[in-house]
Amino acid sequence: MSTQPRGPYAKGLARREEILVSALDVVARAGFHGASIKEIADEVGLSQAGLLHYFTSKDELFVEVLRRRDERDNRTFENADDPVEALLEVVEHNASVPGLVELFSRMAVAAADPEHPAHAYFLERGASLRDSLARALDSDSAPGTGTAAATVAPDPAPDAATTARLLQAAADGLQLQFLQDPTVDMVAPLRALVDALRRRP
Amino acid sequence: MSTQPRGPYAKGLARREEILVSALDVVARAGFHGASIKEIADEVGLSQAGLLHYFTSKDELFVEVLRRRDERDNRTFENADDPVEALLEVVEHNASVPGLVELFSRMAVAAADPEHPAHAYFLERGASLRDSLARALDSDSAPGTGTAAATVAPDPAPDAATTARLLQAAADGLQLQFLQDPTVDMVAPLRALVDALRRRP
Repeated sequence: MSTQPRGPYAKGLARREEILVSALDVVARAGFHGASIKEIADEVGLSQAGLLHYFTSKDELFVEVLRRRDERDNRTFENADDPVEALLEVVEHNASVPGLVELFSRMAVAAADPEHPAHAYFLERGASLRDSLARALDSDSAPGTGTAAATVAPDPAPDAATTARLLQAAADGLQLQFLQDPTVDMVAPLRALVDALRRRP
Repeated sequence: MSTQPRGPYAKGLARREEILVSALDVVARAGFHGASIKEIADEVGLSQAGLLHYFTSKDELFVEVLRRRDERDNRTFENADDPVEALLEVVEHNASVPGLVELFSRMAVAAADPEHPAHAYFLERGASLRDSLARALDSDSAPGTGTAAATVAPDPAPDAATTARLLQAAADGLQLQFLQDPTVDMVAPLRALVDALRRRP
């Protein structure tokens, strides 16, 4: 049995992927409220029912859009030497796609419901992000590594796991401030936090 | 002309206040999803239409519930010598009322829409909170005042306004983590952040 899907199933997967790419572009371009199912369906030449045939619900479609976005962002993480700097790059990019910031934040709250498709997504994504950040922060204390910024580290300094959780929280909270007031600069405060908390090797 | 409302208008205000207190209790007790308009109406002995007569919409009712909650929390801020410590107390209390955390977070995202009643509320509340925190942080550097925790302050250290924005962002972001995973401790990371960033006088 081939591990490559073929025939109608492969076509279905390809169509689903095409829908996700279009939906991601529509949300990024038209904003969360502009990204109706009708708008996304029009973009890929399907009826609304035809589009939803590929997903169990509108919520599942939106969670899959976030996963698709993560795949793009993961390239930033893979290309960066330093996951903490990659986080700052992603946050800077997010300021140009407020529709995706709103989609992410809406789904982050919807994830409170264990039955919602966003629940598992946010638990996995959070754990993976914090793990990646914490490993980078831990390596700061290894001699000759890291790109730590603080000339004098605070004492007491939070451990790597706590700092990782705080970076995630600050990034998510700054997104809420940015949604409410688009003039809010998300990058400068997050950069200040990184500069204050990272230890010089 | 009296500044005290009288007659039917005063009765209307009193009834509205009664509804808000009940709604706050229902959300705190039954959670966001348990706090339907029907549940709140039952609690105050009104029909759903009768209850909504006192508000322009369900969204306005929910924003007013948040304002009513702030009035309670403001007592914590007024009784505390230190607004930063008061924030930690409020966050600790919030862990016992996840329904209110969810209501707050939902409205924080809804506030992205300038037409939504939550928009003005979140802009005002955020500015007022950051102002109060920044004044406390500024007074840390005055000799003989403050309750600063860092034995060694980080260098570079963020200014008071940036630290205030980061404390707000971290508290809001930790609430999202807590909604997704109720075992998450919101207080310990926020305490670690305060301890790391406050300057000793």
